[in-house]
Amino acid sequence: MSSDDDGAWCPIPGRQYDRVVLGHGGGGLLSDELLRDVFLRAFRGDTLAKLEDSAVLPRLAGRLAFTTDAFVVHPLFFPGGDIGRLAVAGTVNDLAVAGAKPLYLSAAFILEEGLLLTDLERIVESMRSTAQEAGVELVAGDTKVVERGKADGAFVVTTGIGVVPEGRTLSVSAAEEGNAVLVSGTLGDHGVAVLARREGLEFETTLESDCAPLASLVDALLERAPSTRALRDPTRGGLASSLVEIAAASRVSIAIDEAQLPLRPEVRAACELFGLDVLHIANEGKLVAIVPESEADAALAAMHAHPLGRNAARIGKVAAERAGQVTLRTSIGAVRVVTQLSGEQLPRIC
Amino acid sequence: MSSDDDGAWCPIPGRQYDRVVLGHGGGGLLSDELLRDVFLRAFRGDTLAKLEDSAVLPRLAGRLAFTTDAFVVHPLFFPGGDIGRLAVAGTVNDLAVAGAKPLYLSAAFILEEGLLLTDLERIVESMRSTAQEAGVELVAGDTKVVERGKADGAFVVTTGIGVVPEGRTLSVSAAEEGNAVLVSGTLGDHGVAVLARREGLEFETTLESDCAPLASLVDALLERAPSTRALRDPTRGGLASSLVEIAAASRVSIAIDEAQLPLRPEVRAACELFGLDVLHIANEGKLVAIVPESEADAALAAMHAHPLGRNAARIGKVAAERAGQVTLRTSIGAVRVVTQLSGEQLPRIC
Repeated sequence: MSSDDDGAWCPIPGRQYDRVVLGHGGGGLLSDELLRDVFLRAFRGDTLAKLEDSAVLPRLAGRLAFTTDAFVVHPLFFPGGDIGRLAVAGTVNDLAVAGAKPLYLSAAFILEEGLLLTDLERIVESMRSTAQEAGVELVAGDTKVVERGKADGAFVVTTGIGVVPEGRTLSVSAAEEGNAVLVSGTLGDHGVAVLARREGLEFETTLESDCAPLASLVDALLERAPSTRALRDPTRGGLASSLVEIAAASRVSIAIDEAQLPLRPEVRAACELFGLDVLHIANEGKLVAIVPESEADAALAAMHAHPLGRNAARIGKVAAERAGQVTLRTSIGAVRVVTQLSGEQLPRIC
Repeated sequence: MSSDDDGAWCPIPGRQYDRVVLGHGGGGLLSDELLRDVFLRAFRGDTLAKLEDSAVLPRLAGRLAFTTDAFVVHPLFFPGGDIGRLAVAGTVNDLAVAGAKPLYLSAAFILEEGLLLTDLERIVESMRSTAQEAGVELVAGDTKVVERGKADGAFVVTTGIGVVPEGRTLSVSAAEEGNAVLVSGTLGDHGVAVLARREGLEFETTLESDCAPLASLVDALLERAPSTRALRDPTRGGLASSLVEIAAASRVSIAIDEAQLPLRPEVRAACELFGLDVLHIANEGKLVAIVPESEADAALAAMHAHPLGRNAARIGKVAAERAGQVTLRTSIGAVRVVTQLSGEQLPRIC
């Protein structure tokens, strides 16, 4: 493969290309160059730098939590985040809502031939800073390259390992009658921010994705409300999917109150304009908590005191009858059943 | 989204589509249907079936090995394997050559709208049977769907966790002067089998990919040759990349002998026809072992007694001078330096 065909010459010393070429995924010298020049420059951890076939981690005390997520968001960069921040935060949050302390991440990249290396560097730098913010170490990775038109810029898959502290048993099936339903902040910010970037929408203020790692918010919450029953991060499928899953798994019903849902005015406006239901819109830096009534005020106070929980609100409660059902009391006082969407109102949102 | 637009009606009761549609990645009811109908039907493990945000695993004793790999092989199905078998074996093998016992896998799927569900089922069934063969449990997963033309059928990312037994310290940097260099069988089978399928080549016999999980072969080898210094699976970049990496990391030279390389006649013929160097062709069920001379015969005997090591051979030795260099004595007695390719002679091979 010659540099004339596959990418313009780049003036940075030692770098042959300014774009991703197929050879960057070949396992030869160009793969090494990409690894050392882009990935290892950002992730200087000892474990990754050893370049063995597997990372070997220190002995971990406790049960392990293990989760994986693929990220295909379009566009790659959006107000408040990018696919890199999303990929780190998304997996960290899946560990955090399982009650685990997130520790280690792996990242696999599927890159499209022609992706600008400067865009890849922005993504990798964003992963580095988000990992640092979340207190996790990226210890293993892989990169493949597919031909132009066979992918869409970049897809990223992150997988995380955490440790669940002794005695912690959060579960989607543990909600009980009388529990309070809390959310940690405004709903729909991520989905509407990505939609707005995609559609070229302008708001009076810039609406940003809420994309953030939630491990420290979960710690703060569980310290003040240790009997919390269940946590979920309402991403794809939105709050509706999270609540329906909790109601079904716990064999309870959940009633929420539209007037209590924290919403930014831009999100409210976009929902009206596009006919979107905010309950189905993805969030990437929010959690829903099912907390015994006795600890609900403490849980809310803990979230209000945390930068990522300032707009936390109590939005409903759990009841025993009509197991599996979620209902919404609308602002005009009617009650409607909340269901999961069949498909997705906003594809490629995460 | 209506079923008329997005996929033909399928007669299997309860299944709305015969192809992947965008809604299958939406996190709503269609995602649930795909999860239950395709993934959970194959992977009935308790951990996966709990459907929490993270799998919570039993306490593991020992140091953890952790590795991830993205698979973008084209075509998805080839003689001797498919992307599913490749994705399980590839990650299992990265754990095995680190000396770890592979235990748990996660799998993330990026599917192209329009992929036949029967093809997805074949892939998933192949993952199930390969995981069973390797003694690993698939405990976590994720599926995203991108629009037609934004991916190439299916990409699969697997991530694995294993445990490294006490006292085992295999390392790419541990090769020493005088060690023997062994390979576990014929070289180039995977790469040539995929190339042949892609190019419509016919051999007199069907050449099959060697794609297989190697954990039990590694166990057999290490039992008889416990002082083994380093193991690698020569995938992308082929034997050349593995040997160059070992020579560089261990600050030694490696000399191999062309006459000793085990090769199938079809692979030899394809290399001549296409001008390929077998040292750069990917293998997916082979390992290279660096073993002290005192245990080399025992290591070979252990591999010969295992179904995946019947054609194992001693191909060279490690020396101290000219650190980092790999040389090949050709069949006519000349010596040439073996280097890594810059890019890749066969893109999308794994």
